[in-house]
Amino acid sequence: MTARAPGRLIALEGIDGCGKSTQAKLLADRLGALLTFEPGATILGQSLRRLLLDTDQAPVSERAEALLMAADRAQHLAEVVVPALDAGAWVVTDRYAASTLAYQGFGRGIDRGELATLIEWATRGLAPDLTVLIDVPAETAADRRGRGAGDRFEAQGITFQQRVADGYRLLAAEEATSWLVIDGAPGAEAVAEAVWSGVTATLGEGPGRG
Amino acid sequence: MTARAPGRLIALEGIDGCGKSTQAKLLADRLGALLTFEPGATILGQSLRRLLLDTDQAPVSERAEALLMAADRAQHLAEVVVPALDAGAWVVTDRYAASTLAYQGFGRGIDRGELATLIEWATRGLAPDLTVLIDVPAETAADRRGRGAGDRFEAQGITFQQRVADGYRLLAAEEATSWLVIDGAPGAEAVAEAVWSGVTATLGEGPGRG
Repeated sequence: MTARAPGRLIALEGIDGCGKSTQAKLLADRLGALLTFEPGATILGQSLRRLLLDTDQAPVSERAEALLMAADRAQHLAEVVVPALDAGAWVVTDRYAASTLAYQGFGRGIDRGELATLIEWATRGLAPDLTVLIDVPAETAADRRGRGAGDRFEAQGITFQQRVADGYRLLAAEEATSWLVIDGAPGAEAVAEAVWSGVTATLGEGPGRG
Repeated sequence: MTARAPGRLIALEGIDGCGKSTQAKLLADRLGALLTFEPGATILGQSLRRLLLDTDQAPVSERAEALLMAADRAQHLAEVVVPALDAGAWVVTDRYAASTLAYQGFGRGIDRGELATLIEWATRGLAPDLTVLIDVPAETAADRRGRGAGDRFEAQGITFQQRVADGYRLLAAEEATSWLVIDGAPGAEAVAEAVWSGVTATLGEGPGRG
């Protein structure tokens, strides 16, 4: 969007089991922001989420996976995110564009420049005001997830999650002014305080208060 | 693909009700080719086809629609088309990339250059050896489809189908060396003969006979 509405978009990112869903909820509550997520926040997206994540679903090729993630994001923006931002709301999303770069790029090995082009088109260039990486070692996240087989990405194993974790760190380093890296190793309350301090230092304390 | 396999890919295109599905079957039978279609030729694609076409499904934004069509195509190539071509088979597909340019481009109004970039990525550049347009006026096709509400694209009405029909003619004119335009107004047998003559004059008479 060329003329951004007064709302703010904050994306929480990290590998499976890093604790970002908990942190997204805590942050949204405290900011008075709309809490949403990817993939699957629309009715279309619910179907796409099953096709993408459930291990008992049909095969999905690497490019089809990236395209389905982009389709889910396009619908998410059209139905949820853009209307909220246009109304002046703040939006906290549990995963956004960086997940595609991290999982389909660093994880699956798809060219990052090509993915960036795809994301740019699917989102009409709508980038987050701030992306918060909840950074934990892949082993820690695996321990937190427990022993279940998990979804298709969790089932890729520790070396896949390690590539994704390393990818996130690289992305954050490359775009340091629009990313915040938070150590996710401490307890949830301590992490939440660090997220809050970092977010409010950058963006203020939420709609009507910032 | 930089080194194309010995198989040949032929796409049949046209508006809903033009008769191309009948012609695709007749052509594939006579050529000894694999008959396939978009969207929906894979297990993933069956789900995507329902999400894209069924009028009782959730809303799909314009870009999400284009991305889902591209995802269906990527999976179709990975599972069906490329393995067949690599094995030396000829493949006749009822719809392919031109459908996206015609429906999402001319029909929905999405920028054609952007769609071409998306298609190029989803297909890894795999273009048909020949695209056959079964050309009928939008009114004729509407009469053939009958009075049912039809799928989401048929339900767009006659002016939408007219834009798509005009778009197909323009695409064929722009790429005259790789398109064949067949008048779809006569009966199915006469159209089939015209398709056969045009295809075999360009590509020969099929695997092992061409």
